[in-house]
Amino acid sequence: MIQTLSFENEKLILLDQRYLPQRVDYFACESYKDVIFAIKDMVVRGAPAIGAAAAYGYYMAAAELQAETDFAAALQSASEAIYNARPTAVNLMWAVNRMRQVSAANSGLSISEQLSALREEAVAVHKEDIETNQLIASYGSEVIGQDAVVLTHCNTGSLATAGVGTALGVIKEAHKQGKIKRVYADETRPRFQGARLTAWELVQENIPACLITEGTAATLIRDGEIQCIIVGADRITLNGDTANKIGTFMLSALAKMYQVPFYVAAPTTTIDFEMVYGKDIEIEERDASEVTHIGEEQIAPDGICVFNPAFDVTPGEHIAGIITEKGILRPPYLEAMKALKASLAVK
Amino acid sequence: MIQTLSFENEKLILLDQRYLPQRVDYFACESYKDVIFAIKDMVVRGAPAIGAAAAYGYYMAAAELQAETDFAAALQSASEAIYNARPTAVNLMWAVNRMRQVSAANSGLSISEQLSALREEAVAVHKEDIETNQLIASYGSEVIGQDAVVLTHCNTGSLATAGVGTALGVIKEAHKQGKIKRVYADETRPRFQGARLTAWELVQENIPACLITEGTAATLIRDGEIQCIIVGADRITLNGDTANKIGTFMLSALAKMYQVPFYVAAPTTTIDFEMVYGKDIEIEERDASEVTHIGEEQIAPDGICVFNPAFDVTPGEHIAGIITEKGILRPPYLEAMKALKASLAVK
Repeated sequence: MIQTLSFENEKLILLDQRYLPQRVDYFACESYKDVIFAIKDMVVRGAPAIGAAAAYGYYMAAAELQAETDFAAALQSASEAIYNARPTAVNLMWAVNRMRQVSAANSGLSISEQLSALREEAVAVHKEDIETNQLIASYGSEVIGQDAVVLTHCNTGSLATAGVGTALGVIKEAHKQGKIKRVYADETRPRFQGARLTAWELVQENIPACLITEGTAATLIRDGEIQCIIVGADRITLNGDTANKIGTFMLSALAKMYQVPFYVAAPTTTIDFEMVYGKDIEIEERDASEVTHIGEEQIAPDGICVFNPAFDVTPGEHIAGIITEKGILRPPYLEAMKALKASLAVK
Repeated sequence: MIQTLSFENEKLILLDQRYLPQRVDYFACESYKDVIFAIKDMVVRGAPAIGAAAAYGYYMAAAELQAETDFAAALQSASEAIYNARPTAVNLMWAVNRMRQVSAANSGLSISEQLSALREEAVAVHKEDIETNQLIASYGSEVIGQDAVVLTHCNTGSLATAGVGTALGVIKEAHKQGKIKRVYADETRPRFQGARLTAWELVQENIPACLITEGTAATLIRDGEIQCIIVGADRITLNGDTANKIGTFMLSALAKMYQVPFYVAAPTTTIDFEMVYGKDIEIEERDASEVTHIGEEQIAPDGICVFNPAFDVTPGEHIAGIITEKGILRPPYLEAMKALKASLAVK
């Protein structure tokens, strides 16, 4: 399996995603500052993968700063730098907060006991993401029929998580079960995560796959060439509205029009239990250069305005099911979410 | 106005589209062989522009070969080389055939009289395309309302024709009439004609414009941000089914779903009066490298399969009107086409 991150000899080893698919290279973080650099510079990306990297980064900071006279203050300051490495990945904040709680709970113990507790927690964050991925893959594979041709968008695989992935994890599991005839991966403009990362994972895993431009998906959907569409999520509201990589809504609308089941796969941590409607999700607009330039090459004229939202919102009505580590949520989502929230609270 | 081609001092001067938008450069064809090179190497592109270039190329061949002992045979051989410069542009074949008919009709005259007739015909082909463009622009501007936000796909402007363009010509005319609030141009993967060429024309013409990725269009269409979509065509069948650049069908489906009027603008030479249904149009598949590479940069892994159709087919039912130099055809298209064919035959 592709391993996006591992912790060996007190170093965080990251598969360096800046060079894929041209080169498989690893980036060794020797200090917590290297971890911050790796998150900022997108050596590691994908919310769950960033979360696990941040947890290890927190532990590494504690180990490095243990001799400081005010250890707690030094660690707090380092953890803020990790927390702020990137602004939108919710799992980054979640992972840092989780590590801070362990610090707080163990502040009365010796430094070496504190370090031991933090190391354990970082490993737990990492391990839980692997397990969550596996549960999503297992539940999700049930919706994939025999000889299925599946379309996916962006990258939701091992490169975005600590484990097999979310939507792509489902596809890998279905492939293991011998169900996958072919995967269509769309290239996903403007950052080409489909071409650069998903296509690379599919080649690595020997899954029969075909790369297409986004405009090509519509004809395949209309002509009955796609049995199922499955994507990830960045935020899901209580009515099932799902913010995900720009271009997702387009696929969901065509799926609705031509009656192709459209699934979202994501851990329950992606659900915003405080928000009811997708229209309230703030959509980040990114730099024009993502559209006007590719590497060094300028592909659009100077002076052209660019509208470059990073995400769009797919209405819950377009979604046949939301696949989580707790099972598959089905419409009506307001009720399904209420039940899920109750079960999570009980636990 | 942007001039894609002009004929000056017996030379064909082409705006060199290989370097847009980074550099505005001109390519002077000094012989008919230069014209063949320019068509093959895509110095000039767009079916109507290629047609006009080919007509001048034919005349230049005649002028260059006038001293040959078997002038007719030499010219026939040169004309074949022009005819075969590119395989799919229907206007290329049409223009060469039209020039051949002039050769045949004047074969009894002196060489200098023949040359004079051929020069006149090449100028006529060029001039007629300019006029056809203008008529399409005039008819088409009637469908654009006040303060319209219009979405277009691929490049259908001055760079693709001898005149103002087809779909983009309509937009320019509407802008002259003060009707255009904003144009959205989608980048049009894989060859980026929207980003490289349409965005460049819009900047040149000072038309308020915004570049988007193809996946972004869906949200704009759903949210009522687009009043009208207008595209060109590569082939139109009798029932209105329209082959055009890949990605067109996707826009038409979303337009249908969210009730945004969707128009096609094209000269009547684009209509295939011998074909009833779009399903019979052969769709050219192009090289994988158009998707996997951008310039020198490889953006997809070795070993990934690619499906790269150059065109898709939009059903006539998605099209509110087909704007031609003879007026706007409205559904039902089978009847409209029958009437058009009769009127063209009379003329």
